Amino acid sequence: MKNLHKITIIGVGLIGGSFALGLKKLGLIDEIVGYGHNADNLQLAVDLNVIDSFSTDIKTAVENSDLIMLSVPLGVMQTVLRDMQPFLKADAIITDAGSAKMSVVEAVQAVFGELPSTFVPGHPIAGKEQSGVAAACEDLFKAHRVILTPTVNTDAAALQTVQSLWQALGANVQTMTPAYHDEVLAATSHLPHLLAFALVDLLNEHDELGNVFQYTAGGFRDFTRIASSDATMWRDIALYNSDAISKWLKHYQNAIGHLIELVDAKDGPALHHLFSEAKAARDEHIVKK
Amino acid sequence: MKNLHKITIIGVGLIGGSFALGLKKLGLIDEIVGYGHNADNLQLAVDLNVIDSFSTDIKTAVENSDLIMLSVPLGVMQTVLRDMQPFLKADAIITDAGSAKMSVVEAVQAVFGELPSTFVPGHPIAGKEQSGVAAACEDLFKAHRVILTPTVNTDAAALQTVQSLWQALGANVQTMTPAYHDEVLAATSHLPHLLAFALVDLLNEHDELGNVFQYTAGGFRDFTRIASSDATMWRDIALYNSDAISKWLKHYQNAIGHLIELVDAKDGPALHHLFSEAKAARDEHIVKK
Repeated sequence: MKNLHKITIIGVGLIGGSFALGLKKLGLIDEIVGYGHNADNLQLAVDLNVIDSFSTDIKTAVENSDLIMLSVPLGVMQTVLRDMQPFLKADAIITDAGSAKMSVVEAVQAVFGELPSTFVPGHPIAGKEQSGVAAACEDLFKAHRVILTPTVNTDAAALQTVQSLWQALGANVQTMTPAYHDEVLAATSHLPHLLAFALVDLLNEHDELGNVFQYTAGGFRDFTRIASSDATMWRDIALYNSDAISKWLKHYQNAIGHLIELVDAKDGPALHHLFSEAKAARDEHIVKK
Repeated sequence: MKNLHKITIIGVGLIGGSFALGLKKLGLIDEIVGYGHNADNLQLAVDLNVIDSFSTDIKTAVENSDLIMLSVPLGVMQTVLRDMQPFLKADAIITDAGSAKMSVVEAVQAVFGELPSTFVPGHPIAGKEQSGVAAACEDLFKAHRVILTPTVNTDAAALQTVQSLWQALGANVQTMTPAYHDEVLAATSHLPHLLAFALVDLLNEHDELGNVFQYTAGGFRDFTRIASSDATMWRDIALYNSDAISKWLKHYQNAIGHLIELVDAKDGPALHHLFSEAKAARDEHIVKK
């Protein structure tokens, strides 16, 4: 792993804060600097020993930095990249924690006019209900999956460095292309989140039955848990992975159409087949996981 | 509460078994008899002290019985009603635990040619992942909701007796019409179950991405938990509450269509509004519940 003296966390919230805190505890980095607009939040991060110091000036924050971790909302990525680009060291590694990857790759391409060899897009699949640096914890990524999505230009050393950091934090690192990442996450994460939001919204807005939430049980609570996620983050994901999400929403809409046909036809054998195949797949791939 | 000397459990599985076991522990009933086709299962229920005795002969099981609890799959209700009808005491209370109520009301109407005043349809909203009498437990219904759906003919005394039994088991009993029950349950329970089955089925059958289940996290696990439910039971629910379920599937299909429009239009404000309204509704009605 490349020697890292100074790293910069752009956006010190739950994810950026937990990344910083874990590395600080390991003592692998001489100096961890936080950057953001909110000095109170950054001071809190210092007080919590999440970062060593902070700056609200981008030049001060990133100059001489060996690695930049972008842990800001997807909608802010391009602005931050543009602000920091003039002050980066030539060989600074740029990585991120965005939930969609093609949009970050495109933002880097737009700002740098190319894809730097030191750019290593990434996505830690971890989180919790709380957000903000106060919720940061050093083992947030432990035994969790982190997906790195090197571009065609990413060099092996930069990839190895970022991978080593995540592994030092206990994560299971896996690599794939940005496009495949976005498809897979659209199907397995973005789609169910949007479906949960849509169900709660449908029942909430439906006047016909009164407050039906009072009749819900544990199944509904679990099914809709992800509808308590942060609305701003999910708006950004829906906007910045819109192609893949739209495609999977349409696949799902067709699947619901098929289900309606089976229910209307009272086709017991086909319904039983669909339910038992789904149950078997979940029991095999999810329950046993 | 009416004095109950003998009650009969038709179908001694998780629900019927837990109902019997709870009442036995309370010592309220002189004799609890189980009925079914599988003598081994019924003997197991006796061995587990869930019931006092059993018979695989319907006449023996129901004659002189003060209350019949039908805890069989929806698809079997009418057959069982037809088999037992000739042997019932005139004032025997008939109740059930089916997840849909209109279909049971229609089955009783078909068999009896009327809706008896002693017929009290019911639905305990409780369960667990395991099924069968071995999973029965006396506190399955404790602090859980039981919905009773008296018909226009149900007399107050019969309703009161059934309500008292459920209350003795610790349940919160609520009454509503059979039709309203079926609408509410279609929206809050049957719809999410079918949506979860459909999502797992879609990802399972989709060859394009390979095994995507390996990339799922806790959100997906929770969202799809109800897709590990029993396929036969859910086939029956889909068949026996098909009108309400079809209607809510169509509402939901329209909601997904609306979401696709917003995603395709990259309408950030509208997406944010939808997600934040849903989050607020869930946080208020479900999280705080």
